[in-house]
Amino acid sequence: MSRLQVLTSAIAVASLSSVAASGLTSDSSPVYGVKLPDGYRDWRVITVAHEAGKNNDIRAVLGNDIAIKAFRDGTRPFPDGTIIARLAYVYESSAENDKVFPAPQSFVAGKPTNVQISIKDSKKYANTGGWGYGQFENGVANPSEPLIKTCFACHAKLDASKDFVFSHYSP
Amino acid sequence: MSRLQVLTSAIAVASLSSVAASGLTSDSSPVYGVKLPDGYRDWRVITVAHEAGKNNDIRAVLGNDIAIKAFRDGTRPFPDGTIIARLAYVYESSAENDKVFPAPQSFVAGKPTNVQISIKDSKKYANTGGWGYGQFENGVANPSEPLIKTCFACHAKLDASKDFVFSHYSP
Repeated sequence: MSRLQVLTSAIAVASLSSVAASGLTSDSSPVYGVKLPDGYRDWRVITVAHEAGKNNDIRAVLGNDIAIKAFRDGTRPFPDGTIIARLAYVYESSAENDKVFPAPQSFVAGKPTNVQISIKDSKKYANTGGWGYGQFENGVANPSEPLIKTCFACHAKLDASKDFVFSHYSP
Repeated sequence: MSRLQVLTSAIAVASLSSVAASGLTSDSSPVYGVKLPDGYRDWRVITVAHEAGKNNDIRAVLGNDIAIKAFRDGTRPFPDGTIIARLAYVYESSAENDKVFPAPQSFVAGKPTNVQISIKDSKKYANTGGWGYGQFENGVANPSEPLIKTCFACHAKLDASKDFVFSHYSP
């Protein structure tokens, strides 16, 4: 083993120890420990939206079976086990489509920006309205604690009847 | 049976005969005879988009299993049996969301406008690149023949490598 290899291994071990010490792994969000759910990309659509401004994205909001049932039945608060996945993409004008249409008008989904997960567990996340949050870029949990704390701070501003959820179901 | 009931029945029979004579039913599109596929609202997402201009909608593009596999694998032309469902909703500024955000920025899906279906059957629809089309409002096929003829006229303008399909898959 070369000196470089030894050094590299030492750094790797130190990094792992540091992650372990924090109680977090790179696949789970800070504060909540939320992971990217298996198979979320195959979930059904709750709704779609466009956020202008700093986000400048276009998004699909998907739900697991419990979420879809609750949205369709109008059940509030959402039952434990509800998971909502918000997939955002760069909001892009489509030259390819506009070439075909009579006027420039087409905006499409570019590269993925991030995926945000909201999980309902009324006991585990009792201090944040029963919701745990996570943000993922390229499948990796964003490690920023200040960022993750903005989730509930913002959702908490919604009318109580919405159970801290922005999306409405689109038929 | 009152006179009104007799008259109503006579009108109903006349309407049905007229529909039967045209070879079309109110659940299938003119020209192509495309029906709204069972369970399409439960299909997986291909992508999302916003059309400004006259459409002024925000849309989810869904696909049946054959469509999703073809998009993920990059298979072109699409195999027979591919069905793409484009669900459009009124593009609406959300006062409810903007109240919570630092600046007005949120655009959401309002009421559904229409659902457009594209079905691949290379033999049945050989004259239109292998694609049959239908547009549905509230589950009812739009009966306009001029309207349905605009579908392929527009899709045909795309680059041949796209097999007459606008959407790209969003991961």
